[in-house]
Amino acid sequence: MGIRVAVAGASGYAGGELLRLIAGHPEFDLVVATAHTQAGQPVSAVHPQLAGLDLTLAATDPAGLAEADLVFLALPHGESAALAADLPPTVKVVDLGADHRLTDAAAWARYYGGPHAGAWTYGLPELPGQRAAIAAADRVAATGCYAVATTLALAPLVAAGAVSPADVVVVAASGTSGAGRAAKPHLLGSEVMGDLSPYKVGAHQHVPEIKQASGATGLSFTPILAPMPRGILATVTAVPATAGTDPRAVLAEAYADAPFVHLLPEGSWPHTAATLGSNSCHLQATTDVDTGRVIVVSAIDNLGKGAAGQAVQCANLMLGLPETTGLSVWGIAP
Amino acid sequence: MGIRVAVAGASGYAGGELLRLIAGHPEFDLVVATAHTQAGQPVSAVHPQLAGLDLTLAATDPAGLAEADLVFLALPHGESAALAADLPPTVKVVDLGADHRLTDAAAWARYYGGPHAGAWTYGLPELPGQRAAIAAADRVAATGCYAVATTLALAPLVAAGAVSPADVVVVAASGTSGAGRAAKPHLLGSEVMGDLSPYKVGAHQHVPEIKQASGATGLSFTPILAPMPRGILATVTAVPATAGTDPRAVLAEAYADAPFVHLLPEGSWPHTAATLGSNSCHLQATTDVDTGRVIVVSAIDNLGKGAAGQAVQCANLMLGLPETTGLSVWGIAP
Amino acid sequence: MGIRVAVAGASGYAGGELLRLIAGHPEFDLVVATAHTQAGQPVSAVHPQLAGLDLTLAATDPAGLAEADLVFLALPHGESAALAADLPPTVKVVDLGADHRLTDAAAWARYYGGPHAGAWTYGLPELPGQRAAIAAADRVAATGCYAVATTLALAPLVAAGAVSPADVVVVAASGTSGAGRAAKPHLLGSEVMGDLSPYKVGAHQHVPEIKQASGATGLSFTPILAPMPRGILATVTAVPATAGTDPRAVLAEAYADAPFVHLLPEGSWPHTAATLGSNSCHLQATTDVDTGRVIVVSAIDNLGKGAAGQAVQCANLMLGLPETTGLSVWGIAP
Amino acid sequence: MGIRVAVAGASGYAGGELLRLIAGHPEFDLVVATAHTQAGQPVSAVHPQLAGLDLTLAATDPAGLAEADLVFLALPHGESAALAADLPPTVKVVDLGADHRLTDAAAWARYYGGPHAGAWTYGLPELPGQRAAIAAADRVAATGCYAVATTLALAPLVAAGAVSPADVVVVAASGTSGAGRAAKPHLLGSEVMGDLSPYKVGAHQHVPEIKQASGATGLSFTPILAPMPRGILATVTAVPATAGTDPRAVLAEAYADAPFVHLLPEGSWPHTAATLGSNSCHLQATTDVDTGRVIVVSAIDNLGKGAAGQAVQCANLMLGLPETTGLSVWGIAP
Repeated sequence: MGIRVAVAGASGYAGGELLRLIAGHPEFDLVVATAHTQAGQPVSAVHPQLAGLDLTLAATDPAGLAEADLVFLALPHGESAALAADLPPTVKVVDLGADHRLTDAAAWARYYGGPHAGAWTYGLPELPGQRAAIAAADRVAATGCYAVATTLALAPLVAAGAVSPADVVVVAASGTSGAGRAAKPHLLGSEVMGDLSPYKVGAHQHVPEIKQASGATGLSFTPILAPMPRGILATVTAVPATAGTDPRAVLAEAYADAPFVHLLPEGSWPHTAATLGSNSCHLQATTDVDTGRVIVVSAIDNLGKGAAGQAVQCANLMLGLPETTGLSVWGIAP
Repeated sequence: MGIRVAVAGASGYAGGELLRLIAGHPEFDLVVATAHTQAGQPVSAVHPQLAGLDLTLAATDPAGLAEADLVFLALPHGESAALAADLPPTVKVVDLGADHRLTDAAAWARYYGGPHAGAWTYGLPELPGQRAAIAAADRVAATGCYAVATTLALAPLVAAGAVSPADVVVVAASGTSGAGRAAKPHLLGSEVMGDLSPYKVGAHQHVPEIKQASGATGLSFTPILAPMPRGILATVTAVPATAGTDPRAVLAEAYADAPFVHLLPEGSWPHTAATLGSNSCHLQATTDVDTGRVIVVSAIDNLGKGAAGQAVQCANLMLGLPETTGLSVWGIAP
Repeated sequence: MGIRVAVAGASGYAGGELLRLIAGHPEFDLVVATAHTQAGQPVSAVHPQLAGLDLTLAATDPAGLAEADLVFLALPHGESAALAADLPPTVKVVDLGADHRLTDAAAWARYYGGPHAGAWTYGLPELPGQRAAIAAADRVAATGCYAVATTLALAPLVAAGAVSPADVVVVAASGTSGAGRAAKPHLLGSEVMGDLSPYKVGAHQHVPEIKQASGATGLSFTPILAPMPRGILATVTAVPATAGTDPRAVLAEAYADAPFVHLLPEGSWPHTAATLGSNSCHLQATTDVDTGRVIVVSAIDNLGKGAAGQAVQCANLMLGLPETTGLSVWGIAP
Repeated sequence: MGIRVAVAGASGYAGGELLRLIAGHPEFDLVVATAHTQAGQPVSAVHPQLAGLDLTLAATDPAGLAEADLVFLALPHGESAALAADLPPTVKVVDLGADHRLTDAAAWARYYGGPHAGAWTYGLPELPGQRAAIAAADRVAATGCYAVATTLALAPLVAAGAVSPADVVVVAASGTSGAGRAAKPHLLGSEVMGDLSPYKVGAHQHVPEIKQASGATGLSFTPILAPMPRGILATVTAVPATAGTDPRAVLAEAYADAPFVHLLPEGSWPHTAATLGSNSCHLQATTDVDTGRVIVVSAIDNLGKGAAGQAVQCANLMLGLPETTGLSVWGIAP
């Protein structure tokens, strides 16, 4: 008998990817998957890629979820805190939503509104000391997808004093699954194919999380919707704090022991397709010839390392399993 | 120490997918991967999705390959027979090329040209008796991608006498990876995105293989290049041989024990994205209201069940492993 | 002062393409564009590609439309008949919906339901005698997009007795704009990109129209949603009625004077991207080596020749203008 | 008899778009189109979207081109200067290549190599005074595609003293047609679909041109290849030079009389699909909440305003025609 695992909010894209990863995880038994309007449907009707997975979506009910050893919450932002409060402390919880990420209640109020549920252990194992913190935690707030891509590129450089935290400019493009599964006109295939479309320019709700996680103190962040289902490519630029900074050396040292973060060989640049279906982050860095700015580019699968994969990675740590259990280092390409 | 596995022709798309599957296979050790012009390159330079896989491509040399217990040949059509002839009989071989598929030398000559190498055991385990034949074989010719999609849809209906084999019409669309990795102008992204493009209409080289495998005696086959990297959707229509044929019942019985073939619930139709990265085939069938023709639609990942996944499935059988070892039943979506 | 033109249903995809064509038409003045929930919005808010077009969407009101010389109806199926009945006979009308296409009331009832509004002059100028009929008409029912692609490929062969009308098999794939602009989950970009998805297999509502227009008496029609915004590729196969049929010769003669129908040189096959933004249809035909079936492939832009372009072509004829006025023969590629 | 127009380098993507625009231009007669390896081919064999255009590609020969009143050069960078030198001064020339753009010979040498051909009148009519300069010129160097998108967003702000020219950060993503039509492995559809891929990070050859045209003195420019055939989206950020800068007001004034540049209503952001097939540039600007940086986003069709459309716009001015003749303000969407 394996570890009993449940997913609340299993009908969305992150939920579907969690189900896939859990179903293929050698130590996990998927015991409950819940949904809202689609409760009562077979999983494979909602996620045709899981044809053959014999499970029916249940209503989202704390009592049902409490029978699991571990619960993943993949709910819309603002909905996980209430549900989490109803789960017994004996159940380990990984929340993929934003509710428990921010330590700054004022930032929460400004970007999300409503009461601040308080911060949990932050689920990015590659940050210094965070692997141990997650292993010791019963409640973990998984990192947002843009925050993963940006923070893995930036945090070691800020921490090493290699770049100034005050003038960071990030342009990050995401595949459409990052915008969720709710049917909205601007997300129709007819609209997004062949199109690059910026949104929330100058005031994105992920800015506080990225600043908190990366150490940036001034962050211009422009997100763009890209014509692909999955993937985030973040271009992160910052002013070097000292002459002769070698950003590659800093990144190489920071991730020497991280099984999912790959600093590519010089001359190779990350691209999103290479991370599809994996839990990996690809990184490369250089110094701009014209301005001297440090440029770091990162690529992830927004549903992998940006959501479900990362959540499973955290769960592995919380349960004392090897970090990589049930996760793929390698992407599916082409 | 696991089973030592080699891949000849590892720089192409099927080769890359083989490497990914082998690297994640619990019983396989990837010992050699060979290429032609890219010999000497690290695998991850040629397949960036395999960043972190520490292996260098070797030149394609029978002596090197002979050190493996099992060799996959992922070479251009017409090149595998010569190499296979130089491998010792103690090495098990799965050929993903066309060289050893056709039993009819005349058909080989007509569509491919050059000497006919002779047929090996045909690598489609879901055909009657074929699972056992593959398990007993040392040399297996894996099925072509279009032939997999068409044969799984059609063969049980022909075998059951449910449809006439004489007037089968197939239109099948494939993602661009099916056309290979050689740089050709009509395969540029600028050309294929937003485009559906038929090719080899009325005389495709896969017709003899599909007829041989499916039992069709008259086959109109139109292939179409579709704007996606992976996936085949085959629409197969045939005239029912008897009134009241229930094609779903025939297919359900044929694949009752096939772990990778899923007859979808009535009303659900296969679509390619649901099979991405998996070794599964999704099927659905109905009877056309206007003409009474039986219509069967199948979907596969052309590099999965259509190539590398199927080859690993055959290898598992040849080695006495469970058929599903190291393969995914579930696709990656969206 | 040009011809005063109105569009009812201007907020959808066909409506937007009509606005673009009308705005660029040398003889048309766009005077009214109406919508339902988006009445009151500037056109460019609903159709960002028309930035700079200074017009506000009005509510759909017969009195407002009656001020135009010509009205295009681009409404959902079943809604145009009632509106058309309220327009004075002095206003010429082209209906892009299905309401006035079918001559067979029973077929209407079976596939659409509700009362049958009766057939108008059928808006496919390339059919024999139809150019003159349209020129003489005040009410024209534009052809459906799948019917355009299939009928242009098939009708001349049936009319010439070159193929049997009784066993026609059509597989046609369409870009997603053919499914409309209403936000539905299965039309999200995340779902459609990288995917081919059949629908309404065995019983599509366009079958009666295609049979009526093409002369087919038995038609198996399978539509597929393809990962591109625009374009239809139809693969039409039929059994030759006589030995030695040359389908290319029949098509060449049928379209010798059709400015928008291009029979491609032998060996070139139509592909959808080459028709993007144009009112053209590309055709090619051959005889299948294995079965002797005639295979004709046609490509159109579903919003061009399949909807708005064709409607403008009909309007040109109704108004005594050259057929090609304000329309492009050439596509936009890549 | 219209103005006789020739295109040298008609087989590439910019060349094809030039042919389409010239064929639809009311004052132009397309008299010669030349190519290198594809000389002797019908235009429609090389550009299937131009089916029905009856012209054969000639070899690239100065004598043949000299029979035209106006010649467009759409050749690879470094090849147009030699050909232009052989054209008589009576022939007006628009060069779409980079050879005559840079005034700084050292910058040419650093990024392109080879002898510097010297600068021609710069073909961006929307820059102050440039409309008149182009109208008076016989030789015009059309602006590069990235330079168009960046300069239209940035130049007015620099010129007005609204932003500092010294710390400009640009991330710009382009459709694949910007990478040309030569068959290269990394441009295959299988590679680019579903992928975002940065290139030449930190040292792109367009930096000197963008600095020259926009007035930037320090420019970090990161280009990204995006999974779509056409379109450029540029995100341009700069530090405001004075408190209370209103970037929208500066842009509105700069482009008040520019028929192809549209500053969108507040809250609407440019996206590439809305400019497809047009000669328009869409702009929007805001001030970043967190850093106070000015962010301007621009969208163009890289083959339209970024290449062929812009070149026709310049030619119109050189010939005393209205700037908009034969060009579309409106895009084709979806």
